[in-house]
Amino acid sequence: MNLAMIIYIVACVLEIEAALMLLPAGIALIYGEKTGLAFLAVALCAALLGLVVVLRKPKNNTFFAREGLVATALSWLIMSAVGAVPFRITGQIPHYVDALFEMVSGFTTTGASILLDIEGMDRCMLFWRSFSHWIGGMGVLMFMLAVLPLAGSGGHNLYLMRAESPGPTVDKLSPKTRSSAAWLYGIYLGLSVMDFTLLKLGGMSAFDAACLTFGTAGTGGFGTLSTSFAGYSMMCKVVTTVFMLLFGMNFNFYFLLIIRRFRDALRMTEIRWYLVVYGFAAGTILLNLYSAGLLFRDAQPIDAFFSVSSIMTTTGYATVDFDQWPTYSRLILVGIMFTGACAGSTGGGIKISRFIIYFKAVSKELRRMAHPRTVRHLRVDGKTVADGTTQNTFVYLVVFVIIYVASVLILALDDFDPTTTFTAVAATINNIGPGLGMVGPAGNYAGFSYLSKMVLAFDMLAGRLEIYPLLIFFLPSTWRKQA
Amino acid sequence: MNLAMIIYIVACVLEIEAALMLLPAGIALIYGEKTGLAFLAVALCAALLGLVVVLRKPKNNTFFAREGLVATALSWLIMSAVGAVPFRITGQIPHYVDALFEMVSGFTTTGASILLDIEGMDRCMLFWRSFSHWIGGMGVLMFMLAVLPLAGSGGHNLYLMRAESPGPTVDKLSPKTRSSAAWLYGIYLGLSVMDFTLLKLGGMSAFDAACLTFGTAGTGGFGTLSTSFAGYSMMCKVVTTVFMLLFGMNFNFYFLLIIRRFRDALRMTEIRWYLVVYGFAAGTILLNLYSAGLLFRDAQPIDAFFSVSSIMTTTGYATVDFDQWPTYSRLILVGIMFTGACAGSTGGGIKISRFIIYFKAVSKELRRMAHPRTVRHLRVDGKTVADGTTQNTFVYLVVFVIIYVASVLILALDDFDPTTTFTAVAATINNIGPGLGMVGPAGNYAGFSYLSKMVLAFDMLAGRLEIYPLLIFFLPSTWRKQA
Repeated sequence: MNLAMIIYIVACVLEIEAALMLLPAGIALIYGEKTGLAFLAVALCAALLGLVVVLRKPKNNTFFAREGLVATALSWLIMSAVGAVPFRITGQIPHYVDALFEMVSGFTTTGASILLDIEGMDRCMLFWRSFSHWIGGMGVLMFMLAVLPLAGSGGHNLYLMRAESPGPTVDKLSPKTRSSAAWLYGIYLGLSVMDFTLLKLGGMSAFDAACLTFGTAGTGGFGTLSTSFAGYSMMCKVVTTVFMLLFGMNFNFYFLLIIRRFRDALRMTEIRWYLVVYGFAAGTILLNLYSAGLLFRDAQPIDAFFSVSSIMTTTGYATVDFDQWPTYSRLILVGIMFTGACAGSTGGGIKISRFIIYFKAVSKELRRMAHPRTVRHLRVDGKTVADGTTQNTFVYLVVFVIIYVASVLILALDDFDPTTTFTAVAATINNIGPGLGMVGPAGNYAGFSYLSKMVLAFDMLAGRLEIYPLLIFFLPSTWRKQA
Repeated sequence: MNLAMIIYIVACVLEIEAALMLLPAGIALIYGEKTGLAFLAVALCAALLGLVVVLRKPKNNTFFAREGLVATALSWLIMSAVGAVPFRITGQIPHYVDALFEMVSGFTTTGASILLDIEGMDRCMLFWRSFSHWIGGMGVLMFMLAVLPLAGSGGHNLYLMRAESPGPTVDKLSPKTRSSAAWLYGIYLGLSVMDFTLLKLGGMSAFDAACLTFGTAGTGGFGTLSTSFAGYSMMCKVVTTVFMLLFGMNFNFYFLLIIRRFRDALRMTEIRWYLVVYGFAAGTILLNLYSAGLLFRDAQPIDAFFSVSSIMTTTGYATVDFDQWPTYSRLILVGIMFTGACAGSTGGGIKISRFIIYFKAVSKELRRMAHPRTVRHLRVDGKTVADGTTQNTFVYLVVFVIIYVASVLILALDDFDPTTTFTAVAATINNIGPGLGMVGPAGNYAGFSYLSKMVLAFDMLAGRLEIYPLLIFFLPSTWRKQA
């Protein structure tokens, strides 16, 4: 284990975070909020602390998958711990566990909140938690790869990118990791600017448009009003419905469009299934609302499309309290919490591409049972999926279930109803935000014990980093010399 | 596909079912119930229908895994369809879908009921549904293998046994399939006689003791009173707690004890983990009940042990309404619905041995990620688990989840609360019986639509036969000539 290199990377992340904290400090200046000083103070401490390490780059730059996973886990843990400090020291969030929960929720683009009075918070605080969505959506290490000349031997970059990026496999857009990262951030920034402009045109204030763009782009879900999206114009709702869907797509799709390989883009299996699942969910929810007599009365068609976009991309904005909908609609929403968005997007959940591998593996196994003498390979988009990848994808499902069940049992000690308990874990481990019951769109996470909040924070990180970095980080055998 | 041989086997099963129906007819004679005639009539028809086929054994006895799976699925479907007829034609259950639900619930040893007035049913009907637990527990094909000289080339036997027996792998107790089957039924019968005797000593009537022994041995759960076990003596409760646990153990354990390989028996990984999970569940439920102030007031310690035995072995008897317990206790019970009992037992669920494979695969994958250059094998009880078995076990989990989710969504159309909807599917696909909410120990399944009841009946069969036989049966490619 090359610990020196890991610490060096974490220090770089600290430097970046310190720089990013100047933005909310600037917002505080604009609105004349004294709490902005907290950001300056924390940024200064973080920058100095990081600088001690960053000045001397380690000579030994051996770097493998293991180092990449550990560096990623550690970066995210420290980034959240530091990012939460301004909430605590200004007293805007009185308890540090709550502040940490809110910050982890921000960086992991979950959007689950413990705030009881959003409108009572300072602007710079709201800006910081929304901005953390934007950073966390594409990833801070990815940002580092895109902007810092860390490069060198190259091993670091690929392993870091793999560890932080969602999905069972990572397609590099370009042979060079650094330019892949730059492409991704470029597309991300471009789409964000388009979203912001359209929201402005839809009548939002610049501040709201910025915060909600951050939340949409990172598929996060923090808003600036306790009513989430209910009060905004129809145009803002439509724009956000579309942009949530766009940010949930595999960014390879946009890259293929940009380099004019339109046919390859339209043939992407994951994009197709993503749209099929979206269509199925939205269509059957519309039918269900209609047959229950709610459509055009308590819910408009846009609410169904918006909710499905919001939950499936794991954003978590709400135009209505969908917890009031019939059981079928609510359970479809719970279902698409788990499918989630595409790999290589900013969305969370288990990811459509994993489900494609699961379904293909099932089909292959059933055919093998019916006709044992034929050998078949598992292929996606014309490429054979390696047995190791399939195995890793299955193990992912099992670890996911184990963490899910353990979390539910710990939360159950708080003795809320089973639906609240189940969906609180579902909404955090899949990085969505709102669940059903007490944590529905009209509720929040303030009522849980601190133990439960720590468990949910772990689940959010596990969901965003796709479990393995955290597990490898906490596994004792990682830290032992190999036998 | 050797269809002639499959039909021949199904016909044998029909003959056996006809013979077994003479038992409830005898019970009707004892209690002077005219409805017993229905059993005679159906038995006669089934026997004649089967005889037409059985008289000419097919010459081509080519028989592979595929034929074994299809024959098993078809046998169970037809056995249930025929077994439900007496309920319907006597009017004791007015609608055929309800009768079928009850019969599938019996054979699959689920114990989920649509009966609103158990005490109002004729004795012969109650006997038949309890007796179906006993047949279904060890399996009708296993019974056929044990008693009929079907043998010949031998291929049939092993493939049938594999298709019907629970668990990821099937250990043959003896090199000959037929004597393995005989051993299993011998152990099954011996334990059943012991259970019956102890229940009689505990003060039960012979009729109740027989019916409840059938339900315990098959890990079914149908009783003869609407209060399930609440009204019986403490001795009966203790005896049943212990015997449920015994019937949930891998029968290899008893075989090893009989042939005096005590050390091997005690070393069985699955038995150890089964007891660890049991101890953990019962222990933490006791603590949870105690800290909620319910222990010694609304619930006695025996109720905790009884409930855990009942749910984990997927029996489903109840001494108390555990749906009134705190959320933690209820969710632990939901958790052990899924782990279920041991492979090679009469219990349902996903099975402890599959979880052992899952955990070992996870540990292997994590170690591989931390130390990529070491090769490790997955070993259980000193034997290497083949990659194909691991793969098949993973695919099992995925198919299980797919069926689970699809069932929940169809049931959701009935618009009961999410907890009822979730646990109704959990309690049927894992062959338990009672869930939470409307289908809790104090409720039943009468309120669901016929569509939902058919879905739940499918789930019960899928759970008992461990999915693959049904899937292969319904898969179009099974019936196509190989390309």
